[in-house]
Amino acid sequence: MTDPVIDLNADLGEGFGRWPLTDDDSLLSVVTSANVACGFHAGDPSTMRRVCETAAERGVRIGAQVSYRDLAGFGRRAMDVPPDELADEIAYQIGALEVFARAAGSRVTYVKPHGALYNRAVHDAEQAAAIVAGIQRAAGPLPVLGLPGSELHAKARAAGLPTVAEAFADRAYTAAGTLVSRREPGAVVHDPDAVVKRSLGLARDHAVTSIDGERVDVDLQSLCLHGDTPGAAALARRVRHELTAAGVRVAAFA
Amino acid sequence: MTDPVIDLNADLGEGFGRWPLTDDDSLLSVVTSANVACGFHAGDPSTMRRVCETAAERGVRIGAQVSYRDLAGFGRRAMDVPPDELADEIAYQIGALEVFARAAGSRVTYVKPHGALYNRAVHDAEQAAAIVAGIQRAAGPLPVLGLPGSELHAKARAAGLPTVAEAFADRAYTAAGTLVSRREPGAVVHDPDAVVKRSLGLARDHAVTSIDGERVDVDLQSLCLHGDTPGAAALARRVRHELTAAGVRVAAFA
Amino acid sequence: MTDPVIDLNADLGEGFGRWPLTDDDSLLSVVTSANVACGFHAGDPSTMRRVCETAAERGVRIGAQVSYRDLAGFGRRAMDVPPDELADEIAYQIGALEVFARAAGSRVTYVKPHGALYNRAVHDAEQAAAIVAGIQRAAGPLPVLGLPGSELHAKARAAGLPTVAEAFADRAYTAAGTLVSRREPGAVVHDPDAVVKRSLGLARDHAVTSIDGERVDVDLQSLCLHGDTPGAAALARRVRHELTAAGVRVAAFA
Amino acid sequence: MTDPVIDLNADLGEGFGRWPLTDDDSLLSVVTSANVACGFHAGDPSTMRRVCETAAERGVRIGAQVSYRDLAGFGRRAMDVPPDELADEIAYQIGALEVFARAAGSRVTYVKPHGALYNRAVHDAEQAAAIVAGIQRAAGPLPVLGLPGSELHAKARAAGLPTVAEAFADRAYTAAGTLVSRREPGAVVHDPDAVVKRSLGLARDHAVTSIDGERVDVDLQSLCLHGDTPGAAALARRVRHELTAAGVRVAAFA
Repeated sequence: MTDPVIDLNADLGEGFGRWPLTDDDSLLSVVTSANVACGFHAGDPSTMRRVCETAAERGVRIGAQVSYRDLAGFGRRAMDVPPDELADEIAYQIGALEVFARAAGSRVTYVKPHGALYNRAVHDAEQAAAIVAGIQRAAGPLPVLGLPGSELHAKARAAGLPTVAEAFADRAYTAAGTLVSRREPGAVVHDPDAVVKRSLGLARDHAVTSIDGERVDVDLQSLCLHGDTPGAAALARRVRHELTAAGVRVAAFA
Repeated sequence: MTDPVIDLNADLGEGFGRWPLTDDDSLLSVVTSANVACGFHAGDPSTMRRVCETAAERGVRIGAQVSYRDLAGFGRRAMDVPPDELADEIAYQIGALEVFARAAGSRVTYVKPHGALYNRAVHDAEQAAAIVAGIQRAAGPLPVLGLPGSELHAKARAAGLPTVAEAFADRAYTAAGTLVSRREPGAVVHDPDAVVKRSLGLARDHAVTSIDGERVDVDLQSLCLHGDTPGAAALARRVRHELTAAGVRVAAFA
Repeated sequence: MTDPVIDLNADLGEGFGRWPLTDDDSLLSVVTSANVACGFHAGDPSTMRRVCETAAERGVRIGAQVSYRDLAGFGRRAMDVPPDELADEIAYQIGALEVFARAAGSRVTYVKPHGALYNRAVHDAEQAAAIVAGIQRAAGPLPVLGLPGSELHAKARAAGLPTVAEAFADRAYTAAGTLVSRREPGAVVHDPDAVVKRSLGLARDHAVTSIDGERVDVDLQSLCLHGDTPGAAALARRVRHELTAAGVRVAAFA
Repeated sequence: MTDPVIDLNADLGEGFGRWPLTDDDSLLSVVTSANVACGFHAGDPSTMRRVCETAAERGVRIGAQVSYRDLAGFGRRAMDVPPDELADEIAYQIGALEVFARAAGSRVTYVKPHGALYNRAVHDAEQAAAIVAGIQRAAGPLPVLGLPGSELHAKARAAGLPTVAEAFADRAYTAAGTLVSRREPGAVVHDPDAVVKRSLGLARDHAVTSIDGERVDVDLQSLCLHGDTPGAAALARRVRHELTAAGVRVAAFA
């Protein structure tokens, strides 16, 4: 039997101009995959360059964190973008990031939608297909990082794109293995010890305790860590440390 | 002695969303090099894709028409952008366009700054160097289309990038061979017959009559045509027709 | 019995910077109410000023045509904006327009949502209430121009704001008196003669022939004319001429 | 002889959407005049509303902190905006802020340009005049907060607008009483004790020790405090405390 292995991903480069946000430097010492904002919800060109340079130096995989065009709303407001337009917007963002990845000696090797686009692509087949079309247009069959069981993953597989399933140690799961909506009480796990424990369970056993107290299986190759709140980088570092101490190998997904 | 040969370039894809501007389809039947707007002064992703597709179909060279980030001012307002930031903004634009060029089976094969950035890079060594740095960052030693004698061309050559000199059949020249400022009377030649005649002189003899009535030599490999005013596309078509009729070969620059 | 009277409204000032769109000058000789874009889907400050100046000179009422913040999509992409944020965005736009209306010696005297926001506020009670809250925040009880029977009108009335019902001579109506969706065939009436005839019926009899051939009553105080397509201004002028010739008084709503 | 009196102003509301920046709540307990960002370099509508509400509650004067349209550059990149366009952009911003000031029971009672526009208006007569024209267009003869001796103040006075002179306790002055350029060493005073001491000297004696060690007179009615760096709010609070303890009355300018 092989050792358990897990990818750690986080959203990075989410500042914009004068406004910093994510603690990019710290997180790039923790994660194995960096979801880099591409300018539509966050991420100015110079931030994109710097994140790519550091990621490349440290051997962290670079992914395009694509979004609706919505700086004012940080990409958190779902938008009825016509599919063709959406596909082109996705392609545009990937292409812009690719120059900084290449200039740093790396490449964009996966795509993850951000915020409202991520949430919408769980259920909206049309937008999910548009995201996949945009990826193909820009970069061919890149892996798509997302929620297992999502429309996005279904459309990606149908188009021949690899999918990478992610899970969240700081989000509650239902007994059916889906995320508890953020509108429900208890949706977010705030206790750092609990987050660490759940990370271990997810990485080692691909399982977590549901909000109803039952053990539930979760399909994952990557664990999503957060870096945009105070203490987040420290917690991410601790999660990685405990995973390693528990014999879990932390490595970018294959 | 070989036949005279000339490249014809025009700014294309300068609409944005609901707002069309340049008559892209008509001009792509006339020009040999398309300066495609990349989203900073004009050019939404879907327009970029369409222009690249048509350009690729018709064998028209695709160039990145890079600009200051200024949709409200159409890139016509000079900006004191710090050089590093400017270089990254240039690289971002080139990368975004490259995905649409590649998806259409072509490539971005040159760069031309737009509007206020073009004008500023004639004299401003710092911004000229930043543009060149941005091009190198994004795409290596791409040719730079611009004004002969400009700082931009000097910095490009110093960095090992090819330069392509362009001239304007609808702009008055001084006896010294520089453009008459748009603030001066007579700076723009409006008479279509004069534009055609000047095009022939420029393409065949690399010369034009200056605003003072003297013959002045002009260094050029490309003639810039305009496509954003009524009648512009028809005039561009006529220029191409007359050039060909006069034995000038119209072809993309080498 | 008094003469029939009708208000004519149109969307104006929908250019942005370098990109013109609506034929503002022509339409301001036709309409009695100008829905002026406020910068979120279209409308730069200088365009707003010019439209307000001409409207004030000609005695045309000035209304704020408020929108989602979406220049790239021209406000045509529905967005899930949280209600508080939406109310503030509405207020912001009204305030910006008000300075130009006042500087021209007039005032913003009504509000009409644009595009996707207009359509969404027909059925979405939450966003309709947010629009009303934004209007109250910015300007007190201003009249709301919109679709009779809409959630927007219901929320406006509940909040004590006057409502002004508008109808469309170039849109097909169902037998129930609602608009045929643009996705259905025959939704838009393209024949100018038909548009004129329907305008007369709407203004004089408050009735129109439905897509099924039945006479249907339509509640209206204002007729919406369009100004963003070739020939639109000429058709608008003709509609006004024929209305006047038929004894309908064209005047801003009370 | 009357007690010395000083206004304290700070730039506030300089977050944008997801990105916070200035510690608005803390600073609104310290300053007497709030320069509120209006959306062009920072400041979304909801932030503008909240800052205006708190300012009104605490009796803090509300001023419009107007800027070039440059979110990506935080208004720090000088732009060659044509004067008419600039005046309209200024008016737009003032109008947008005015609705939130009024809704909170207050008014916009002064204007201060931000960043590159502030710096440019020190020497650029054309842009200074455009700012003044924009203020007049939007709001009549509002006071203009700025640098004594600036073109902005000259144009304001020529147009009949009151001027309010400000000084900086954390900036070095030349022996001539002008600010040492930020490009020079020693331009910014980082030591909190020195800042407090200089604040007292400026407020009480209208004088400061120049970078050459000489006493230099400084014309001021307002002291500009900063709130966008860690520790800034605490230092601002301390400055106010020490001013009051030294018998200086802290009050909004007349």
